[in-house]
Amino acid sequence: MPCEKDDKFKDECGVCGIFLNDPEDENEAARTTFYALYALQHRGQESAGIAAANEHNIELEKGMGLVSEVIKARHIKKLKGNIAVGHVRYSTTGGSALVNSQPLVFHYLNGMVALAHNGNLVNTVELRKRLATYGSVFQTTTDTEVVANLLARYSQDKLEDALAKCLIDMKGAFALVIMTEDRLVGVRDQMGVRPLCIGNLKGNYVLASESSALDTIGAELIRDVKPGEIIVIDKDGLRSIQVVNSPRRAHCIFEYIYFARPDSNIDGINVYKARRELGKQLARENKIDADLVISVPDSGTASALGYAEESGLPFEEGLMKNRYVGRTFIQPTQQMRELGVRLKLNVINEIVDGKRIIMVDDSIVRGTTSKKIVQMLRNAGATEVHMLVASPPTRFPCYYGIDTSRREELIASNMATDEICDFIGADSLNYISMAGMFSALKNDEERFFCAACFSGNYPIPIES
Amino acid sequence: MPCEKDDKFKDECGVCGIFLNDPEDENEAARTTFYALYALQHRGQESAGIAAANEHNIELEKGMGLVSEVIKARHIKKLKGNIAVGHVRYSTTGGSALVNSQPLVFHYLNGMVALAHNGNLVNTVELRKRLATYGSVFQTTTDTEVVANLLARYSQDKLEDALAKCLIDMKGAFALVIMTEDRLVGVRDQMGVRPLCIGNLKGNYVLASESSALDTIGAELIRDVKPGEIIVIDKDGLRSIQVVNSPRRAHCIFEYIYFARPDSNIDGINVYKARRELGKQLARENKIDADLVISVPDSGTASALGYAEESGLPFEEGLMKNRYVGRTFIQPTQQMRELGVRLKLNVINEIVDGKRIIMVDDSIVRGTTSKKIVQMLRNAGATEVHMLVASPPTRFPCYYGIDTSRREELIASNMATDEICDFIGADSLNYISMAGMFSALKNDEERFFCAACFSGNYPIPIES
Amino acid sequence: MPCEKDDKFKDECGVCGIFLNDPEDENEAARTTFYALYALQHRGQESAGIAAANEHNIELEKGMGLVSEVIKARHIKKLKGNIAVGHVRYSTTGGSALVNSQPLVFHYLNGMVALAHNGNLVNTVELRKRLATYGSVFQTTTDTEVVANLLARYSQDKLEDALAKCLIDMKGAFALVIMTEDRLVGVRDQMGVRPLCIGNLKGNYVLASESSALDTIGAELIRDVKPGEIIVIDKDGLRSIQVVNSPRRAHCIFEYIYFARPDSNIDGINVYKARRELGKQLARENKIDADLVISVPDSGTASALGYAEESGLPFEEGLMKNRYVGRTFIQPTQQMRELGVRLKLNVINEIVDGKRIIMVDDSIVRGTTSKKIVQMLRNAGATEVHMLVASPPTRFPCYYGIDTSRREELIASNMATDEICDFIGADSLNYISMAGMFSALKNDEERFFCAACFSGNYPIPIES
Amino acid sequence: MPCEKDDKFKDECGVCGIFLNDPEDENEAARTTFYALYALQHRGQESAGIAAANEHNIELEKGMGLVSEVIKARHIKKLKGNIAVGHVRYSTTGGSALVNSQPLVFHYLNGMVALAHNGNLVNTVELRKRLATYGSVFQTTTDTEVVANLLARYSQDKLEDALAKCLIDMKGAFALVIMTEDRLVGVRDQMGVRPLCIGNLKGNYVLASESSALDTIGAELIRDVKPGEIIVIDKDGLRSIQVVNSPRRAHCIFEYIYFARPDSNIDGINVYKARRELGKQLARENKIDADLVISVPDSGTASALGYAEESGLPFEEGLMKNRYVGRTFIQPTQQMRELGVRLKLNVINEIVDGKRIIMVDDSIVRGTTSKKIVQMLRNAGATEVHMLVASPPTRFPCYYGIDTSRREELIASNMATDEICDFIGADSLNYISMAGMFSALKNDEERFFCAACFSGNYPIPIES
Repeated sequence: MPCEKDDKFKDECGVCGIFLNDPEDENEAARTTFYALYALQHRGQESAGIAAANEHNIELEKGMGLVSEVIKARHIKKLKGNIAVGHVRYSTTGGSALVNSQPLVFHYLNGMVALAHNGNLVNTVELRKRLATYGSVFQTTTDTEVVANLLARYSQDKLEDALAKCLIDMKGAFALVIMTEDRLVGVRDQMGVRPLCIGNLKGNYVLASESSALDTIGAELIRDVKPGEIIVIDKDGLRSIQVVNSPRRAHCIFEYIYFARPDSNIDGINVYKARRELGKQLARENKIDADLVISVPDSGTASALGYAEESGLPFEEGLMKNRYVGRTFIQPTQQMRELGVRLKLNVINEIVDGKRIIMVDDSIVRGTTSKKIVQMLRNAGATEVHMLVASPPTRFPCYYGIDTSRREELIASNMATDEICDFIGADSLNYISMAGMFSALKNDEERFFCAACFSGNYPIPIES
Repeated sequence: MPCEKDDKFKDECGVCGIFLNDPEDENEAARTTFYALYALQHRGQESAGIAAANEHNIELEKGMGLVSEVIKARHIKKLKGNIAVGHVRYSTTGGSALVNSQPLVFHYLNGMVALAHNGNLVNTVELRKRLATYGSVFQTTTDTEVVANLLARYSQDKLEDALAKCLIDMKGAFALVIMTEDRLVGVRDQMGVRPLCIGNLKGNYVLASESSALDTIGAELIRDVKPGEIIVIDKDGLRSIQVVNSPRRAHCIFEYIYFARPDSNIDGINVYKARRELGKQLARENKIDADLVISVPDSGTASALGYAEESGLPFEEGLMKNRYVGRTFIQPTQQMRELGVRLKLNVINEIVDGKRIIMVDDSIVRGTTSKKIVQMLRNAGATEVHMLVASPPTRFPCYYGIDTSRREELIASNMATDEICDFIGADSLNYISMAGMFSALKNDEERFFCAACFSGNYPIPIES
Repeated sequence: MPCEKDDKFKDECGVCGIFLNDPEDENEAARTTFYALYALQHRGQESAGIAAANEHNIELEKGMGLVSEVIKARHIKKLKGNIAVGHVRYSTTGGSALVNSQPLVFHYLNGMVALAHNGNLVNTVELRKRLATYGSVFQTTTDTEVVANLLARYSQDKLEDALAKCLIDMKGAFALVIMTEDRLVGVRDQMGVRPLCIGNLKGNYVLASESSALDTIGAELIRDVKPGEIIVIDKDGLRSIQVVNSPRRAHCIFEYIYFARPDSNIDGINVYKARRELGKQLARENKIDADLVISVPDSGTASALGYAEESGLPFEEGLMKNRYVGRTFIQPTQQMRELGVRLKLNVINEIVDGKRIIMVDDSIVRGTTSKKIVQMLRNAGATEVHMLVASPPTRFPCYYGIDTSRREELIASNMATDEICDFIGADSLNYISMAGMFSALKNDEERFFCAACFSGNYPIPIES
Repeated sequence: MPCEKDDKFKDECGVCGIFLNDPEDENEAARTTFYALYALQHRGQESAGIAAANEHNIELEKGMGLVSEVIKARHIKKLKGNIAVGHVRYSTTGGSALVNSQPLVFHYLNGMVALAHNGNLVNTVELRKRLATYGSVFQTTTDTEVVANLLARYSQDKLEDALAKCLIDMKGAFALVIMTEDRLVGVRDQMGVRPLCIGNLKGNYVLASESSALDTIGAELIRDVKPGEIIVIDKDGLRSIQVVNSPRRAHCIFEYIYFARPDSNIDGINVYKARRELGKQLARENKIDADLVISVPDSGTASALGYAEESGLPFEEGLMKNRYVGRTFIQPTQQMRELGVRLKLNVINEIVDGKRIIMVDDSIVRGTTSKKIVQMLRNAGATEVHMLVASPPTRFPCYYGIDTSRREELIASNMATDEICDFIGADSLNYISMAGMFSALKNDEERFFCAACFSGNYPIPIES
């Protein structure tokens, strides 16, 4: 609802890049990047930017807002060149500012570079200090500027070698798309926490956070960038440099649960099918005597459909979402405050009245929204409300580029499941089990995913 | 997709109003109206406005854009008074302009008036000419200004009498919400083409185009305004004046099919249930041997679920909608133009591959989008694509306030169903029958609805 | 200084219009009007607008701000047609709004009209009431809308006859420039209070508030529109209709003293020379033993030069004006408040130190700025400061379109000259005499000018 | 005139800073800086910015446009701290951008720094290369960023020592105002090319490009910063470090001729008096039989008054300047192009007609504007036009921070004086002599000023 932070984890960024061998016209790279960012808009709505490289220069356009608000036709016209990178950003800090938006374009010893970054380093403080000792200057507090300075520190090396050294220095989760005047480079952290994939657009290479961005521009998914891999694309084609070979992977499991678009395939798993399987697994773990399955739209729908299929119960759209809800800062009246979530969601009384309802959501963060929805359903005449959550309790904060709330705000950090059930006022509350989740994702081994927000087992040590 | 008009009919406006007997503070009426407009945003995204009346004045704030873009906290602060009216507008004309936005506030002999209007008069030309002969001046080409001048022409009468005379003069479809310095008035055309309902917000009266706006602000639906009825709300409560008693009703049937929110109840019918029934009826009329039912989101989903239920086939989300698609004017590359609809919709290959698909949509206007979706499904591996439409062929333009395309653009005006099927490239194409549609809406009598866009039977004669 | 209303009377508007027989291109009329408005910018900085008429339509562009802020190249492009009118506006009311900006474009019985108006009617209330009785609707509180409705009331007459009737109805001061689809019309009130002149631009007719606007676009001054005259310009040339022949003229004397540009000629008098003569007359009336004459820039300079010439004393630029002072709302510090006027004016100490100064200004309204300047001069070392004012004491408010302060704020309404001298802290203070002013303007007869702000003799009776 | 670059040299920047010991409130430093920038607005209108330092942070607000457009009350509120620096910028490059605006705020090893810079380094390329070799990254092409990186390179030194080393490295013209979390620092290049002075605001120290900025905020001029001097202001007061002691000074002589405000005192010379003396010297060097002296406003006026005084000829305002001329991009009509300069300047025919005119201007750059003015004067009836220029011919480009045109555009580089006279169409044209200029400025020694734009003797060697 407006006036209140959405009760969900927040992704931080989406990145993409393209290298055209024989562009239709001088703006095709930028224009295609625009549409790829469009498809990645759900990964960040705070700022957007595109940079394009031609022989003479790297041109940059960025600003606060949605892609379509920031990048206009007149900007595309100025973004000339056969290589382009794009970025959308969501920021955890209230003081979001233009200066922090990306891509970051800079000059260093060997020319110009544009940098687009998704993720979070855990050794930022140490790296900044080390760089400052040698004379580095920082105009922002972003990790991106740290990466730029780190790269420049190795400016005597070939770009590939410099990047390999950076990859060793940088601890944390990151997917980087880097452009020089004649090259496009993709880098993924050693455990592959943040996603990045490679596509083929009629013989040209594309990099993007999610495969759905490839679909949007008509490209085909080739494969994901591997953990610890550097991909270099230039006029001679694609070259892979496998810098480190971690025995452990740590793909962010929340991409499957909530962040990524259902039509994306990440590290071999289709997101929609994963959610549907989570719903089926929920049904196997929780047999509930009810009349109807509904979802909290839109993220809970795939799991709800899976639950309905496995359980044989009918699925209905019992909650309607207002598609136009955006940021608003109008102080609600007292009356409105009581209603709250109604601005975003409304119950269809005719569907719910007199029924025993199973409501499926993808996750619970603070529980405040769930509480209001349960109340709305009861007001609409639901005789029972059983809440099912398609992920385990989120009890630990993320340090790898996701805006979870602070630990004290995570309801599952502070309450047992039955207490949460009481808090939200449901007749029953059940989360999927850890084992069930892994099995639904067809990958029983926990060592494939990072599930630290559920387990507290952080695969990459946190800087104290 | 961007650069192309959405392939749907367009609603033109949403209206609302509130009269508070004992407001919490001097801005409560405006603030509540803001949230009601929020819930009506789907009825018009071009401009938004709120006017509030206090003893001294009527204050107005309006502008181009979404409600949340136009009305800011600082505006609400200036909108003082216990009565307020609001308006959202979509315009059929390319040259949309601030001057045409609503509410229209004007002074006439008896004081100030704010006017919010949804619909279209069919005798505008005649009325303007008649008024101009007596000295009227028009600053816009809107019907709203005609209504204002008409009302002023009867300024020697009591407001109720003046409105009754206007109601007789005005031919066409309209729902009006009118505010004077001490009164809120609702008027609906003689056949009730455009919707308007009355709600109760803790003892205060509210008027709105749709009941979902009442839900959003915590009000309860009392009843719909009757065709030809004038509702006057002042400090003494609500008064009804039934000016004319038409034997024929003509509720716009497209409100149920596409325009209205599924969580609204209009003239006794719940929109979601209506769409679901349309889907069931489609299944009864068309038994198709297939593996899967999918919908064109979001408007086709309720009917698709109904079809799935009745047919026993599974429902899946085979098409994903990009929630952030807005207006963009970036010229797509040649590559992009071929893909087109991909920016807005993407197929989940894993769901569709190797399957015989039934695709349900609410309507087909020009057919261009359907054609692209069918192609996308085939590219994703669908072995058969059967398209079902939850309304009959739209073959006639609307003159009552809906932006249909021109007749030559309506594909069903120019092609038989099998030709359309060829055009869109589906294996089969079936529309619901007229009789089936009326029966699904539980109202066999055609005289309850206006279905002129299907039948060409216009209940209100059109000015030649 | 910023944060404070300039201590000067304020003009309200500038108007202009052009009729091109054989335009260079379809935007030439609008483009030329743009540059004419540029030259009239000093008459109003709140809003600006241009309308252009072609056979099909009247196009309009207007907005809040300076001409160059409001009208951009893309707007000029849309303003097609061989006739155009322009308007700049200053508003007396804090609540200035777009809705009040001009030209006003409207439809009435005989087609479209654009109206640009400078001045103020004194019988607005009566006219509005009379018009409302017959059914008129008013969307603003401007006189312009009253004129539009008045004209429409006579829509059965030929335009010239209708305007002649309007001229009889309208009491007050006004210069109107009116455009229909095929004609440009200029009208001046019966006594010629507000200025309006006719120019010749290579065989085409132009109307403008001041002749300097003609110079700017390369046109030559033909003559002033006469009081009570209607000028009609169409493809057959220029036609004059002398509606009334007032025995009394009442040209606003403040145009010469302060409002108009020094390079304008109004009703036969060059403004710069008039100011210079006022300075000379001041010298004849006041012989003061001093070292130096300085002016309060810019409006006092011509009179100061005249004073210097007549007295034989040297003229120096002792006060420097900051050319970039605009509107600012930064609350000054306590320190700054004491300094005040320094933001706008600064003393050159080297010039003033140790000198006996004569300071010439065009007028004193509230006296607060004069007081601060005198103090600044003393701080800079001036041993004596003698203030001379090139107009008599302004003791009466204007009802004819000028924003004087209210009477209680006019220092000369409440204090004798020696008291004002004490208040501002000068060694002496002298105003020009009434007789001296008229003689300097080479027109001894008071019946040529409106000097009501000095004398209280209002030539047009004020509506009670 | 619009659409054409002003035919004048352009200054590049104005800087200021303040350190308050006991501020009235937490925004006083920023507020006072705002008003100081206001007074320096003539030095740059492209961008403006203010940074304020408190114990915790340095806050920054900057943007494109005038000070009053960029810095609003809400920004001042956020700029908390007892130290502040400000900057206004004019850019020589068409591609002006926000990223280049100042102050530049950055983090380095020892904390945060804000940097405001006026001038131009001549060894930028060498410095950037040297810094990049050690790993520096540049996000802009400004000298300011080079200075920041240079300072960071010496981060192991005390700030004063680091700055002293920078002063040795930096070749060129510069005035720097630097702020750390607890200090305000001023630095002036070794020869004092660009101005910087120290003021006292009720016991607090202020730094500013010109003394008129001190007047505006109520501060008193203490002295100019000396060439090669570093001024450090902190809670213990002011400390001077004289790093280098150049035997040669090189104060930019164009500050006196055109750039600086007449009410400023720079390096011991009052600008207004200097201009007046230049005019007197012109009269001594050129005795011309004429009726009238006029100036090209505003910059030529002081010299014209000097000329009039010395020659005994009367001074008149024969040319009027439109105070509202700003940037406009409306393409003028053919008619307008011929007139050109009329938009900015207009002749008062009544003054000029039938007279032999002496016209005084401060300088001639390309001569195109002078040519148009002479033509205007002749059209207005001037029988003779004698042009006098209060500076020698400008024949050489500036490399020290001033935007002169390129050499081939400087008319005096390509034509002899009599040819220029023919080009502009005057009856005679005379420049002040070099010797006359130095004598008028009371400083016969050329080694006090940089007059390279006249002589080609560049005091600081230019990087090849």
